[in-house]
Amino acid sequence: MTSSESEPPRRPGEFALIAELFAPLAKDAPGAFGLTDDVAVIAQRSGEDLLLKTDAIVEGVHFFRADPPELIAKKALRRALSDLAAKGADPCAYLLALSLPAWPDMAWLEAFSRGLAEDQAEFSIALIGGDTSATPGPLNIVVTAAGRVPVGAMIQRRGAAVGDLVFVSGTIGDSAGGLALLREDCATLFQPDREALVSRYRLPQPRLALGRALRGVAAAALDVSDGLLADLAHIAEVSKVRVEVDAARIPRSDSLRALWGNGEDAIVRAATGGDDYEIAFTARADRREDVLDAARRAGTRVAEIGRVTAGEGAALLDAQGREIMLTQPGYRHF
Amino acid sequence: MTSSESEPPRRPGEFALIAELFAPLAKDAPGAFGLTDDVAVIAQRSGEDLLLKTDAIVEGVHFFRADPPELIAKKALRRALSDLAAKGADPCAYLLALSLPAWPDMAWLEAFSRGLAEDQAEFSIALIGGDTSATPGPLNIVVTAAGRVPVGAMIQRRGAAVGDLVFVSGTIGDSAGGLALLREDCATLFQPDREALVSRYRLPQPRLALGRALRGVAAAALDVSDGLLADLAHIAEVSKVRVEVDAARIPRSDSLRALWGNGEDAIVRAATGGDDYEIAFTARADRREDVLDAARRAGTRVAEIGRVTAGEGAALLDAQGREIMLTQPGYRHF
Repeated sequence: MTSSESEPPRRPGEFALIAELFAPLAKDAPGAFGLTDDVAVIAQRSGEDLLLKTDAIVEGVHFFRADPPELIAKKALRRALSDLAAKGADPCAYLLALSLPAWPDMAWLEAFSRGLAEDQAEFSIALIGGDTSATPGPLNIVVTAAGRVPVGAMIQRRGAAVGDLVFVSGTIGDSAGGLALLREDCATLFQPDREALVSRYRLPQPRLALGRALRGVAAAALDVSDGLLADLAHIAEVSKVRVEVDAARIPRSDSLRALWGNGEDAIVRAATGGDDYEIAFTARADRREDVLDAARRAGTRVAEIGRVTAGEGAALLDAQGREIMLTQPGYRHF
Repeated sequence: MTSSESEPPRRPGEFALIAELFAPLAKDAPGAFGLTDDVAVIAQRSGEDLLLKTDAIVEGVHFFRADPPELIAKKALRRALSDLAAKGADPCAYLLALSLPAWPDMAWLEAFSRGLAEDQAEFSIALIGGDTSATPGPLNIVVTAAGRVPVGAMIQRRGAAVGDLVFVSGTIGDSAGGLALLREDCATLFQPDREALVSRYRLPQPRLALGRALRGVAAAALDVSDGLLADLAHIAEVSKVRVEVDAARIPRSDSLRALWGNGEDAIVRAATGGDDYEIAFTARADRREDVLDAARRAGTRVAEIGRVTAGEGAALLDAQGREIMLTQPGYRHF
């Protein structure tokens, strides 16, 4: 693959790019060899399990080319960190596989790398390995993140039991509202509300402190990415139970209420929108105080939104306890 | 993302696809949860280091859409296994991030999954996690492979020293010959030679047994993917030495000689072509017998091709010891 002769190269070659932009992200990481070797080494620690999560984001699907490169970098990273958070893990390192089209120039790549550096500092993680490839298609970014938990402490999806209470952190639907605003703006919405929602879409906040505090407290957990109802249905399926959610108790932000109002439709949109990166979880009914204590220690708002019953699936209930029928419980790629 | 209304869906939805085609690949793997959880768990073992390698292959760059899907799957996997092999590691598990365009139908995906299953049996590894995403672009496949070595036994790139001997396994240039044949066939070449070369391009053979046997014997090693000279230059750079290779000693197959002949040009093409997935390595001069013994135990041919000297870079020398100037030492993506 060679540069066009009619134009100056828009960026250095593959190896120079790695040395200039990515090796500095790995320079202090043990086992990364400053990205000068073929593999990364993770030292084993007795008493701990290592958790791995791989996650792709694709231009035109998960982000737009015009999005700020720092935010694209952080979104790629934080989606994987959010999964680790919901499992109770401490993230420690990540690998990055970039399939690069011709369009990202050096300024774009520098900003992308800066976004990674900022989040490395924020979350105490480091790049330990990577791969860069050319692509004739859209930018494709795959992060594989590693985290540690004490042996057996990972909070699984399959731990929910009949009688459990159901909780979710933060607020639900903001990201879906932000995406809707990017597609079609709402002239009557106050600018601060608009910015709050769009920033929730662009920049997930992995709930790492809460996940850690929920070790040994939550019975089942996952992060809300496909949509609250769709993700709770994943817990229901592997735990062989039914999850009931009271629509009115789903925590929604004032900004989202300003955008979509308070009707049932608005709640359904929030509960099926996805990309929330909150933690949805269940806990035994006698652990309610421990859940609230964990939320306090983590400094994260947690709302009780429902219960686990016998049966299957995840159901959204209205104020009369009747199931609200959903045409599509959440996002799916195809 | 919804299916077009005018056509029947070409394959099941995302979750059904994972359940039908990928979950079976993970069903016996500890820590994979049958792909029903968000992350994979790798148990820690004292006395071992865990090695991780992430590697992307992209339609139109690393493979063609018309290639057999089984072979695309195996190529994706084996490229990462080859890196682990060169480091002396035993692969144990892998994660898969698939960015899927609309074109792969169910039959294609079944064949792809079958290819993975065959290689899982061949190499005693299992799928432990993954991610599927839609893409408007080419098929993008990222494998993140994990392997184990005894603590500190990883064969690094940086271990070469002045006075070392330089070796390479198998034969060099076959894959480049195979790719050349796919681009422009050679009417005078015998069919078995053609098939041998094309199959080297399509199906890497990770040298796992040799890598294992070279633990404690090789001083520096990597797998030949960019091209023999380019990859040896990587060793030279991080080891702060010069690597000299005698052109005439580079092992080439009879099939490749039949295609390109025995001239200096043919040797240069082989030594810079890439995609060989052989192990290039150095060892102290007094370890030559140990190297040959390791090769015998692994059942893999190994050729001594040069030496490590003071200086920098990797040089290809003719029969008179003069450096052959290369315009491009190996493949680079951009």
